[in-house]
Amino acid sequence: MLRETVRYDVADAILTLTLDRPDHLNAFTVRMADELEAAFAEAAADPQVAAVVVTGSGRAFCAGMDLTRDGNVFGLDETRTPTLDDLRKRPYEPEIERGVRDTGGRVALAIYQCPKPVIAAVNGPAVGIGATMTLPMDFRLASEKARIGFVFGRLGIVPEACSTWFLPRVIGMQNALEVVYRADIFDAEQAQRYGLVRTVYPPDELLPAAYEFAHSLIDGRSAVATALTRQMLYRNSAAASPLEAHRIESLAMFYTSIGDGKEGVAAFLEKRPPEFRAGIPDDLPAFARDTEGWQR
Amino acid sequence: MLRETVRYDVADAILTLTLDRPDHLNAFTVRMADELEAAFAEAAADPQVAAVVVTGSGRAFCAGMDLTRDGNVFGLDETRTPTLDDLRKRPYEPEIERGVRDTGGRVALAIYQCPKPVIAAVNGPAVGIGATMTLPMDFRLASEKARIGFVFGRLGIVPEACSTWFLPRVIGMQNALEVVYRADIFDAEQAQRYGLVRTVYPPDELLPAAYEFAHSLIDGRSAVATALTRQMLYRNSAAASPLEAHRIESLAMFYTSIGDGKEGVAAFLEKRPPEFRAGIPDDLPAFARDTEGWQR
Amino acid sequence: MLRETVRYDVADAILTLTLDRPDHLNAFTVRMADELEAAFAEAAADPQVAAVVVTGSGRAFCAGMDLTRDGNVFGLDETRTPTLDDLRKRPYEPEIERGVRDTGGRVALAIYQCPKPVIAAVNGPAVGIGATMTLPMDFRLASEKARIGFVFGRLGIVPEACSTWFLPRVIGMQNALEVVYRADIFDAEQAQRYGLVRTVYPPDELLPAAYEFAHSLIDGRSAVATALTRQMLYRNSAAASPLEAHRIESLAMFYTSIGDGKEGVAAFLEKRPPEFRAGIPDDLPAFARDTEGWQR
Repeated sequence: MLRETVRYDVADAILTLTLDRPDHLNAFTVRMADELEAAFAEAAADPQVAAVVVTGSGRAFCAGMDLTRDGNVFGLDETRTPTLDDLRKRPYEPEIERGVRDTGGRVALAIYQCPKPVIAAVNGPAVGIGATMTLPMDFRLASEKARIGFVFGRLGIVPEACSTWFLPRVIGMQNALEVVYRADIFDAEQAQRYGLVRTVYPPDELLPAAYEFAHSLIDGRSAVATALTRQMLYRNSAAASPLEAHRIESLAMFYTSIGDGKEGVAAFLEKRPPEFRAGIPDDLPAFARDTEGWQR
Repeated sequence: MLRETVRYDVADAILTLTLDRPDHLNAFTVRMADELEAAFAEAAADPQVAAVVVTGSGRAFCAGMDLTRDGNVFGLDETRTPTLDDLRKRPYEPEIERGVRDTGGRVALAIYQCPKPVIAAVNGPAVGIGATMTLPMDFRLASEKARIGFVFGRLGIVPEACSTWFLPRVIGMQNALEVVYRADIFDAEQAQRYGLVRTVYPPDELLPAAYEFAHSLIDGRSAVATALTRQMLYRNSAAASPLEAHRIESLAMFYTSIGDGKEGVAAFLEKRPPEFRAGIPDDLPAFARDTEGWQR
Repeated sequence: MLRETVRYDVADAILTLTLDRPDHLNAFTVRMADELEAAFAEAAADPQVAAVVVTGSGRAFCAGMDLTRDGNVFGLDETRTPTLDDLRKRPYEPEIERGVRDTGGRVALAIYQCPKPVIAAVNGPAVGIGATMTLPMDFRLASEKARIGFVFGRLGIVPEACSTWFLPRVIGMQNALEVVYRADIFDAEQAQRYGLVRTVYPPDELLPAAYEFAHSLIDGRSAVATALTRQMLYRNSAAASPLEAHRIESLAMFYTSIGDGKEGVAAFLEKRPPEFRAGIPDDLPAFARDTEGWQR
């Protein structure tokens, strides 16, 4: 897919995805959703990519859905009366996928499926979908100039991009209710108090800090072990019981133990750095590829 | 239902529900449970009500179940040996609903079903059911005179009112276990450290602060968007995966976008306050009314 | 089971389980897993035990899986290609239980099933399984000398012992992802900032503080009410809705109200300490013993 709204730059094992409509404060469009969905799928399969940093071009991260475009902002077919069954049974039929499904949610699910750490480097305003798209990312690092707002309520609409699943997991229920009801735009310091943002940096130090942090997560690690760890934390957090988590963890431990774990243990005992070889997606155990089964 | 134990006062779009047995520190009775259940159902359907503030009359919020009444405190039929199947299959049969089901739980579920923000203004002692009933409320604001205790363990009984579902979502598992095992009564400052109470105020400033906070949540907002947001945060927090959240959010975004969202976007672009028209419950999309289906 | 790797000492209603391979920094072995699993089952059924404190002998808590033993560290049968179905349908068949299932997970499930408060007294290094085994314990108290590390990622393997279910519940998703991805060893103060450790003590004060804290949870309490409270907080935190929690809580409140609750209320009204009589497991209501049903 030709990229018009997102830049895709890989260096030093890190993919930087830059939201790139700086003249529009990187406002989100259906085109940007499609490109982000494709970019995360590509990152998932790209052996050169071990982690992803998402940031914005120019002074904004993402100012929200582009409301200035004429016509039907959300691209919806108003003649429809979609039901939950439509979403359950035929989500990929064009009239549902393009006419009903939340575009931010498609991006959020692509991030959720990405088997690599994802870091939001929030360089400026992150509003609406610009705020919610950071929630399925693993970490939110912010510039002192970041301004974050879950402003949906002021527009008569609702939070999306799977935010109602992710937000309480990150900041707890009382804070989650506050930020979506108030629909205010708050600064990086307040975002940190809510537990939303991990750390705050002077503007010039944000990206270097994000790369340094990314390297602290990936250097000398097994790509497969990292992928399984990410999947398990999100999925098992919602498992009905620890017994369900135990089943998956047993498989993940089994297959990593007879895979990269052998080199990891040998290197540890020999006091040398490990050389892991397993790659994504080829060496992911079969159980972890069943995206229609356990993963969802 | 004639109100004997609860006051119901609507002003300026806010319902104040006042627990009103001040001579008994607003101790909870089966009568009070029935009145609260009815009041939240009435508030849900009342177009004059956009938010609810719950507080206590006199110096207490609610001192817990009224243990001074003679006879069977909990109103239980001890000849019964109820099973989980009884609760699952015939919860509304009188012998189960009145003789087995937890009265606090009936109130908690009525609060959970309320499609409007609910704020606890904890003006004094909130003990036992007085503490647990605040958990399905969205926020806990407290007076410096508040004293909170999940004291069930000291009486040989267990926490109720759906608190075992709500409490870990609000304060995390380690804190949740501590407050219920210890069964101590702690002050507002400690409650804030646990993450239970959002903010603490001098006694005189509590109710004004609660009203001001309520207005920050409802003024200029769409009643339908707020209702869907509340439902989604609670329900989707327990969804098996973000994909389930995505389905519901897609519907909620679709129906608000072709409803109040049109006015919201137009007002935003025209830089004027929006005039939202959709009302509760008439304009709730069908999928969100199915209280036996998705909602539970 | 003869104990070789764990000490089991009961005094003053508290069981102290001491990981006891001090010459190996209490490194974890399959033998230790078996003994811990048996010890928690024994503690569950022992009427002399009201709470459990877990600590380490010598200067470590548990340095992780014993990697110095020759041969197959994890005891796995590499000729196998186990599937999720194997774990679901025949977890107790020896070739699965001994050759595939995560040993740490067997211990974690035994702790999860224990109907009594469990406190980790982390006296020194707690690494790998030494860190994850503390998560199904209700509280983590730590010495200033504690060092905690979820180091799996550095060995090419994954976090286990049901940690992907427990960790986000204790410290939230952003912190959980950080500690497992980074796989660093951090000190007690940092562990407290993450929300992992409840309180930090000088080394000499750790065990006395753990015992004092344990007594604050159990003295004058009903063993049955405490057991049900523990079960409900963990299990209902993962329930699909508060309605499910309400059903269980109704039964738990019903049976404790006609049991120890009678004495509890009487003692409260007579302003005397209660004398609770219900014991574990004999007086647990039937619904709470169905370990294959609601409990899991």
